Amino acid sequence: MEMEKVLEGLVKENNSKIVMVVMDGVGDIHNPEFDNKTPLEYASTPNMDALAKESVCGRHIPVMPGITPGSGPGHLGIFGYDPLNVIIGRGVLEAVGLGVELKHNDVAARANFATLDDGGLITDRRAGRIPTEKTTELCKALSEIKEIDGVRIIIEPGKGHRFVVIFRGDNLNPAVYDTDPQHEGLAPLKAREQKKEAAYTAGIINKFLEKAGELIGDKQPANGILLRGISARPKIPGFKERYKLEAAAIASYPMYRGIADLLGMTLLPAPDSIDGLFNTYIEFHNKYDFFFIHVKGTDQAGEDGEFLTKVSVIEKVDRALPILMGKRPNVLAITGDHSSPCPMHSHSWHPVPILLNSQFCGIDNTMRFTENQCNTGGLGFFESKHLMTLLLANALRLDKYGA
Amino acid sequence: MEMEKVLEGLVKENNSKIVMVVMDGVGDIHNPEFDNKTPLEYASTPNMDALAKESVCGRHIPVMPGITPGSGPGHLGIFGYDPLNVIIGRGVLEAVGLGVELKHNDVAARANFATLDDGGLITDRRAGRIPTEKTTELCKALSEIKEIDGVRIIIEPGKGHRFVVIFRGDNLNPAVYDTDPQHEGLAPLKAREQKKEAAYTAGIINKFLEKAGELIGDKQPANGILLRGISARPKIPGFKERYKLEAAAIASYPMYRGIADLLGMTLLPAPDSIDGLFNTYIEFHNKYDFFFIHVKGTDQAGEDGEFLTKVSVIEKVDRALPILMGKRPNVLAITGDHSSPCPMHSHSWHPVPILLNSQFCGIDNTMRFTENQCNTGGLGFFESKHLMTLLLANALRLDKYGA
Repeated sequence: MEMEKVLEGLVKENNSKIVMVVMDGVGDIHNPEFDNKTPLEYASTPNMDALAKESVCGRHIPVMPGITPGSGPGHLGIFGYDPLNVIIGRGVLEAVGLGVELKHNDVAARANFATLDDGGLITDRRAGRIPTEKTTELCKALSEIKEIDGVRIIIEPGKGHRFVVIFRGDNLNPAVYDTDPQHEGLAPLKAREQKKEAAYTAGIINKFLEKAGELIGDKQPANGILLRGISARPKIPGFKERYKLEAAAIASYPMYRGIADLLGMTLLPAPDSIDGLFNTYIEFHNKYDFFFIHVKGTDQAGEDGEFLTKVSVIEKVDRALPILMGKRPNVLAITGDHSSPCPMHSHSWHPVPILLNSQFCGIDNTMRFTENQCNTGGLGFFESKHLMTLLLANALRLDKYGA
Repeated sequence: MEMEKVLEGLVKENNSKIVMVVMDGVGDIHNPEFDNKTPLEYASTPNMDALAKESVCGRHIPVMPGITPGSGPGHLGIFGYDPLNVIIGRGVLEAVGLGVELKHNDVAARANFATLDDGGLITDRRAGRIPTEKTTELCKALSEIKEIDGVRIIIEPGKGHRFVVIFRGDNLNPAVYDTDPQHEGLAPLKAREQKKEAAYTAGIINKFLEKAGELIGDKQPANGILLRGISARPKIPGFKERYKLEAAAIASYPMYRGIADLLGMTLLPAPDSIDGLFNTYIEFHNKYDFFFIHVKGTDQAGEDGEFLTKVSVIEKVDRALPILMGKRPNVLAITGDHSSPCPMHSHSWHPVPILLNSQFCGIDNTMRFTENQCNTGGLGFFESKHLMTLLLANALRLDKYGA
């Protein structure tokens, strides 16, 4: 039987509060320039140290050992959705990442501006990597296309030559092939349905591409458009259906707000400071069962290779922790969605440290919340997709399995 | 390839002896009233300490991280049967729990006495929770029904308003829906087949219910019967087929004797004392390859929240250990089927400590058999369903996989 089916039969409600603090990309490896320490080891974290002594720790594996997750799979995992089975289309991920609120029947596509020659063949799939400002300007021009046959068209510029197109209307179906042929020297493809229910949608997309071509046809080097990852919101049960949790997200970045929204979380105000994030929790404490609090700075610092910046973000979280503990949740997890080691300047596959505190967590011998201490913790190493089950268990929100 | 298929091709026989001592519910968490220790930490266990120093330890996860198993799934797991795939029907589990020896084609149902009003509608699904004595008396009355159309009827009283009905005869099929509508204000349902091969069985059950109604129709408040979990012995290979092991169970409680019986173990005498259990092993040492020795006291104490009682049971096992070691098995595992932490008064999801000793186990740094020492042991954290494979491997009863 599948994990999801098992949980479905066991979840029950009570008045407990669960908080998951996600320091994005917090996991790291030894940094030769800093005494071979990780940022968590190097940072001064008296509050987390004290908490670790009365908690259970471990490490979770986002997808599989050795697999480096993107932000989508990373977050799906810690929210209890198997990232190997639940796939969020790239168009949808790009759209929510840009802060577009997607409705259930919307179809979203990632789009590139591209350069076409006089014969209509692609000479540059990225239009010479035009700057974001240029893309914003072009998107404004495209926004003249407000609707096609009653289907609303929403254009949102992204970074560089990228943007997204959202089609909003009745009877749309995302089973449409990419129009990007993936090679230069070819013409952009017509939108073509993968199954006949999507023929209407492919037609709408083609009409859109035609009109768009008229609008930008003379705007060298960005005189063409390529679509990829045509997709709709995944039909997955949200936190309410799946866990009987009223869930809220305190996250400032569009991508994470987007994923939280896809899973049915209410989006709460997310000020820039970490104090501010925790204060939002205090303010809304009574209104929700589950709080996802997202701290972006750790990942950014990891990707930039800025060890001391990452240390500083961790220390800020530590200093702000007493705010959160002012209304101590029944279950508190401090973790990340993946590792982003400073020496690698990127996401990585390394297991993510996790600290779990509750009245019933069991106390292990972990003295600090660090990668190597977590190696010996009472949670062991486990797949990220089990984290939500552990949180629900600690909140006494799960019945026994079998007699 | 599935675990079962892999094992099937690798299992071989030799003269080794394997002993699994199951201290039911032994795993625990910190107990604030006892210096934040677990019973295993608090207990004086010189014999197990010495053994730990020459063993390998770890923790096993009964079902999935965060899932609390019942006794059925817990034991299936440590016996190497995936508790998510092998489901023992509730009727069967109840029957074996009451000590009824089930034959292969028996159909068993859990039954409740219920209260019906004059119109035949249920006013209380539990007949006002009549006491066990009353149920025993009513079951005696029902036992007048000895057979229906050649199908033997066996009635066994349980606790409170519960009992089981076993149907024994040819051509029975357990694919019959519950007759319990799960709600008061409705009439009990007729037994109805889930597939046509079970139509005959549904008919027999309906005839039984009719006759039973005549016998107890005037016995307010227990004038109705509701059936649930209609099931037959699962068709799973036993220890002999699966592991080429002649297996024996030394367990005194009906539930565990029942599960052992379902898996083809011989049921040996199981005296009340732990010395007695180990002496049975000594007595039958030559006759079997595998011994399952079940100690119930730890779970009972955990469920009652009796920390010092749990400590005392553990200490008794420790003191009796030299008896067992008098005929030292080639492979010895000391573990539990799940955790039952005293502070929780119930089964729990916490990984179960395991100590494994054999000539080839490898010695880790574990100094004592405790939860936190096991966190860092050489077996790591693993799903309970792999325990039997580890025991067979240590007994050199498995061939190499692949060339």
